[in-house]
Amino acid sequence: MSEVGEGVSLNAIRPSGSRASVFADLTHFFAPRSVAMVGATEDLSKFGGRCMRQTIDFGFQGNVYPINPKRETIFGQRCFASIADLPEAPDHVGIVLPAHAVPTALEQCAAKGVPFVTIFSSGFGELGTDEGRAAQQRLIDIARAGNIRMMGPNCNGMVNFVDAFALTSTATIQGPRRAAGELGVVSQSGGAGQVNVMWRAQQAGLGVSYQVSCGNACDLDLMDYAAFMLESEATKVVAMLVESLSDGERLRALAERSYQLNKPIVMVKVGRTEVGSRAAASHTGSITGADDVCDAALRQLGIIRVDDCNELYETAMLLRQQKSFKGRGAAATSISGGNLVMVADLGAALDIEWPQYQTDTCEQLAQLLPGFGATANPTDLTAAAIGQPGAYARATEIILQDPAVDVLIPVMTIASAEDVRSVAEVSARSAKPVALLWTGCTSNDPALTHQALVAQGHAVYSDAAPCLKAVRRAMQYSEFRASRLRPMPSRPAGIDRAAARLLLEQQKGPMTEQTAKQLLSQYGVRVTHEYLATSKDMAVTHWSNITSPVALKIVSPDILHKTEAQAIRLNLNSAESVAQAYGDIMAAALNYRADATIEGVLVQEMVGQSHEMFVGMVRDPTFGAVMTFGLGGIYVEVLKDLVFRLAPLSRQDILDALNELHAMTLLQGVRGQAPADIDALVDCIERVSWLAADCADKIAEIDINPLCVLAAGQGVRVVDALVIPSC
Amino acid sequence: MSEVGEGVSLNAIRPSGSRASVFADLTHFFAPRSVAMVGATEDLSKFGGRCMRQTIDFGFQGNVYPINPKRETIFGQRCFASIADLPEAPDHVGIVLPAHAVPTALEQCAAKGVPFVTIFSSGFGELGTDEGRAAQQRLIDIARAGNIRMMGPNCNGMVNFVDAFALTSTATIQGPRRAAGELGVVSQSGGAGQVNVMWRAQQAGLGVSYQVSCGNACDLDLMDYAAFMLESEATKVVAMLVESLSDGERLRALAERSYQLNKPIVMVKVGRTEVGSRAAASHTGSITGADDVCDAALRQLGIIRVDDCNELYETAMLLRQQKSFKGRGAAATSISGGNLVMVADLGAALDIEWPQYQTDTCEQLAQLLPGFGATANPTDLTAAAIGQPGAYARATEIILQDPAVDVLIPVMTIASAEDVRSVAEVSARSAKPVALLWTGCTSNDPALTHQALVAQGHAVYSDAAPCLKAVRRAMQYSEFRASRLRPMPSRPAGIDRAAARLLLEQQKGPMTEQTAKQLLSQYGVRVTHEYLATSKDMAVTHWSNITSPVALKIVSPDILHKTEAQAIRLNLNSAESVAQAYGDIMAAALNYRADATIEGVLVQEMVGQSHEMFVGMVRDPTFGAVMTFGLGGIYVEVLKDLVFRLAPLSRQDILDALNELHAMTLLQGVRGQAPADIDALVDCIERVSWLAADCADKIAEIDINPLCVLAAGQGVRVVDALVIPSC
Repeated sequence: MSEVGEGVSLNAIRPSGSRASVFADLTHFFAPRSVAMVGATEDLSKFGGRCMRQTIDFGFQGNVYPINPKRETIFGQRCFASIADLPEAPDHVGIVLPAHAVPTALEQCAAKGVPFVTIFSSGFGELGTDEGRAAQQRLIDIARAGNIRMMGPNCNGMVNFVDAFALTSTATIQGPRRAAGELGVVSQSGGAGQVNVMWRAQQAGLGVSYQVSCGNACDLDLMDYAAFMLESEATKVVAMLVESLSDGERLRALAERSYQLNKPIVMVKVGRTEVGSRAAASHTGSITGADDVCDAALRQLGIIRVDDCNELYETAMLLRQQKSFKGRGAAATSISGGNLVMVADLGAALDIEWPQYQTDTCEQLAQLLPGFGATANPTDLTAAAIGQPGAYARATEIILQDPAVDVLIPVMTIASAEDVRSVAEVSARSAKPVALLWTGCTSNDPALTHQALVAQGHAVYSDAAPCLKAVRRAMQYSEFRASRLRPMPSRPAGIDRAAARLLLEQQKGPMTEQTAKQLLSQYGVRVTHEYLATSKDMAVTHWSNITSPVALKIVSPDILHKTEAQAIRLNLNSAESVAQAYGDIMAAALNYRADATIEGVLVQEMVGQSHEMFVGMVRDPTFGAVMTFGLGGIYVEVLKDLVFRLAPLSRQDILDALNELHAMTLLQGVRGQAPADIDALVDCIERVSWLAADCADKIAEIDINPLCVLAAGQGVRVVDALVIPSC
Repeated sequence: MSEVGEGVSLNAIRPSGSRASVFADLTHFFAPRSVAMVGATEDLSKFGGRCMRQTIDFGFQGNVYPINPKRETIFGQRCFASIADLPEAPDHVGIVLPAHAVPTALEQCAAKGVPFVTIFSSGFGELGTDEGRAAQQRLIDIARAGNIRMMGPNCNGMVNFVDAFALTSTATIQGPRRAAGELGVVSQSGGAGQVNVMWRAQQAGLGVSYQVSCGNACDLDLMDYAAFMLESEATKVVAMLVESLSDGERLRALAERSYQLNKPIVMVKVGRTEVGSRAAASHTGSITGADDVCDAALRQLGIIRVDDCNELYETAMLLRQQKSFKGRGAAATSISGGNLVMVADLGAALDIEWPQYQTDTCEQLAQLLPGFGATANPTDLTAAAIGQPGAYARATEIILQDPAVDVLIPVMTIASAEDVRSVAEVSARSAKPVALLWTGCTSNDPALTHQALVAQGHAVYSDAAPCLKAVRRAMQYSEFRASRLRPMPSRPAGIDRAAARLLLEQQKGPMTEQTAKQLLSQYGVRVTHEYLATSKDMAVTHWSNITSPVALKIVSPDILHKTEAQAIRLNLNSAESVAQAYGDIMAAALNYRADATIEGVLVQEMVGQSHEMFVGMVRDPTFGAVMTFGLGGIYVEVLKDLVFRLAPLSRQDILDALNELHAMTLLQGVRGQAPADIDALVDCIERVSWLAADCADKIAEIDINPLCVLAAGQGVRVVDALVIPSC
């Protein structure tokens, strides 16, 4: 991650220019005026045969050029011996050749002036061998030199339902061409992206605008395709199935366009990111599941992360309506009480709220359904609504108007087509989101299916859990959009950035606790009073200058874990005990590591009754400076009551994050304890987050543990700190 | 819960007799020789019309008697004016009348000698009013007096696919009658049970044997129906959708039959159990989400709990094969790499293991697929398997033979019918379970669907998450069966049960800490050395008799939370400080509660470096004595690092439970700390679990917090304990 300059906030990190400067213009990649296929055949058992056949069958209207030196025509199209022989430079060329033959074909494309090439062939980087990587690098070099933008290698191509252009072997597009819809689909994998996401979304009634399976993504990456889809008129939501994310800055830029266009990105992120080699001395390596970082980063960027492929389109179904949630208040109505209990339970587990209706709503319901007493939410309309045509739909309409209700979930099992249609009409008219949970079918119209309703724009679910998950995630997206209206992080006063950077520049090798604390002080973080002693007498003098009991600790760049070395003594409050401890610690340190460079012994104020928290930073290879904080002391690794956030952070960001911690309950005071100084904790985390952001190029890791949080008004103290400078 | 006698173990609690003694014999309820419907009509817009029509259409072969004084015939059947007029006593009578008319009809059934009645009518207990409850009680009284076993009221009846008998209004059975299958379905709700579970299972290809929607279940309960289904030959798995569980003993008996018959029960338990009114002074009330108790109890009984209706049949699909898992080792194979990454990720999140194959397996794979180097698990067969007919099936067969593989998950997207069939054949032949994840369809045979394969006995899933969840739950069932072969809990030595019961019998009102510790001592639990002082001088004398520093605490039945009252002082080690503390504590106590009865001040040994754990017991209204233990101190309510188990417990049960806790990592020693005395902790929990089981009739709650666990070999000390006797 590059250095973040003075006064820079998250806002400023976001790209301000046009997308053209960040993402490739893929207009003629997705909608070429002419296309060629190198390796085309008529043999449908071969990739080149299926691919060629489908480009033609899918209805492409431009010139199609099969390239195969052994054939005169293919599927009735005139065949050419090579790219060089073509009468024009096609906008997009597909290459299906053995790996060794690909570079030559690519060179011919370059010579001809082809702007876009898709390489289906495998045998490159995915092999995991040096040869494979070298072969892939050669493709990159040829493409760069020839001004070609390239998809693949090892990919399964793309489909453009908007302009009827396909360049792929997938069987999922056989048969009549499906209408274009609102979902863009980007994946590396062919099978998962084209079958589990695209085809299944279409089966569910949700149309697709564009789809790519980009394989190794050695040139154009997932962000380029997703950006194109976001900018396109047809697409309302982009679903991404991602195996690795390497460029956090480009993802951030993509997320920013998603926000600006109000077109959400839904993402499955599978596999483990390469957290890489962390310094061996680090504690945090074991804490920072890189996946936790990814999870937090995606959330901060407003990208909706889901767990499985089906959740991509299930969530998109609701998000594409672009109806916003004011809060987490849901209402559900049904004539199946059992389903309502289920929905209430599962919703509550997802932190969906079921607010009470206001009096006016209850009165209107009572007028509509005389004798209907229950106005609980979820609302069982059983006795009252049966046999009254239209009553169910009218009741849902009344409930939708209640200000406490942010989303409605009508629940149906087996219902008449009239009932289903009337509920769908309420949904279509509503400015508030409506997610229809329909576990059965109609009793009298086989054509009125889930798929049919989804195709009309409704969000319809067969099962409660996916329905509520989609609702919760759509709420999350509205919460993100609301959070973007809050002030961005801004640098607090009392920070000496220049001094801190100077200190880091001058640092050679590992940093002692004392230097680490000095660095933190330069960012206005309150550390313990402490002085370095290099003799017994000096230690005793320091003790007499500190008004509280003291701790003595070894100071050595070679001993980072002082407790393990037994080179630490606590709660000393007499000249004799200080002198004795000094001697013991020096002996223990040399016993632990005979060749350790020892700078002395730190004489440090003891901190009174307080809560031990952890505040740290790690530098993630994808996302840069990541803050992590939570319950500290020996619990940090065991209980993992920690949150992760990209630095820097505003005070509100920090408070929101703290509220996700169990530790927050402790800080607020349990069992009659006084509340802790949460203000000072927030201030400390804010300052460390700026240190992390400002010096991300120079710091690999920060561990403050414990940060002692005293009672309200008494502040915090950094008792121990570890800073690992970058190599 | 009744008292558990001397030497009694979980085994002995299980019923030893035949099921007839516990559950009703429902043979003629489900398969009557004749049936009558009170309130029958020909009007299909009415419940009585639909219900009557369906009984006839569903193919019932016995005598059918519509009862309606206004009609001569109904649907071609001779109609009778009342039950009294019938030529015989029907085995099963359905009643669909307004609530006020039901008692008379029920009385007529009793007079006629009808053994089984189903009351569909609502307007009873479900109203939540006194009138409703009284009306329901009247039904119970009539049924009891008349020897009638009754389903309902407020229910939607039953379906018997085995003998072609239906007595229900549900639209789900319209059309040709579906073949009977292996799934029994029990629910209270009609809509959810009949649509979300029964109909959806059938749509998925899984046949149903019997189904009931038993409504208020005021006489026959869910356990009666489930027991009948378990005993029936047709049923292999019973799915239960439960809104409230009230009788833990009957559930235990049902679970025992399930175990004996090796026919699993899968359950959704929705809604909140009536935890009821816990003692206001309790801490544990807030800890014990009763749902945690239910969760733990179901697991201990071997009942597989799932979250949503669809998971009932998705799990049953795999469980019905009755193939056992030796361990958690899964293998997955596919030609879609993207799907495998997905499956690997989601599986690992569920603690499914992906073991390495043994050398022999790798060699066979290499022989089968020359050039196939990768033998990672999950196994991507891409390059090698394509174009080799049968290779994919053969590879899965080789992998299935690997001893490390306990279950195989073949993953397919869009495949040829031949490929699908060959994998299905491997599955059918395999003694090990196989769960097929098929995200697409066949490319060449529209009839070969998921449903068709499921109907043939296969477990087939469209999405990765449900597939892996089903696999994990089936593993869990095998783990339960294996755990049943372990020794049952047996009473440790050194327990004076009689003395403990005497102490509890003599106890009037709340119990002091000191008496609580005495009770624990009688079960061989090690408490702190401590003595009661009623004067300053006495306190000082006690201090001098204890060789370590001491704590002083108020002893008063009116002050249960001593910290809150500030009536506690720690770490005193001089005569002056003890004397001073005595005075301060007495003052604080009277300040906290002026009218408190004060027995004195406890002088107690301070426990050295140790881990603070929580060990407690609550009496659950359904499940009786429930142990709960985990991280103690002030963290107990905040971090909720706790487990729940039905008492009593074996040492192995306790160790297994401890291994689910984060706290276990702390106990084992982190950052160079010495390991704690886990043996002594297990011994302590075992003893408390016997106290809980032995005296469940006399104790409402036990809270030991903290239980200090010293270093290995040094034992544990109960530092503070709260015992709340039953009222």
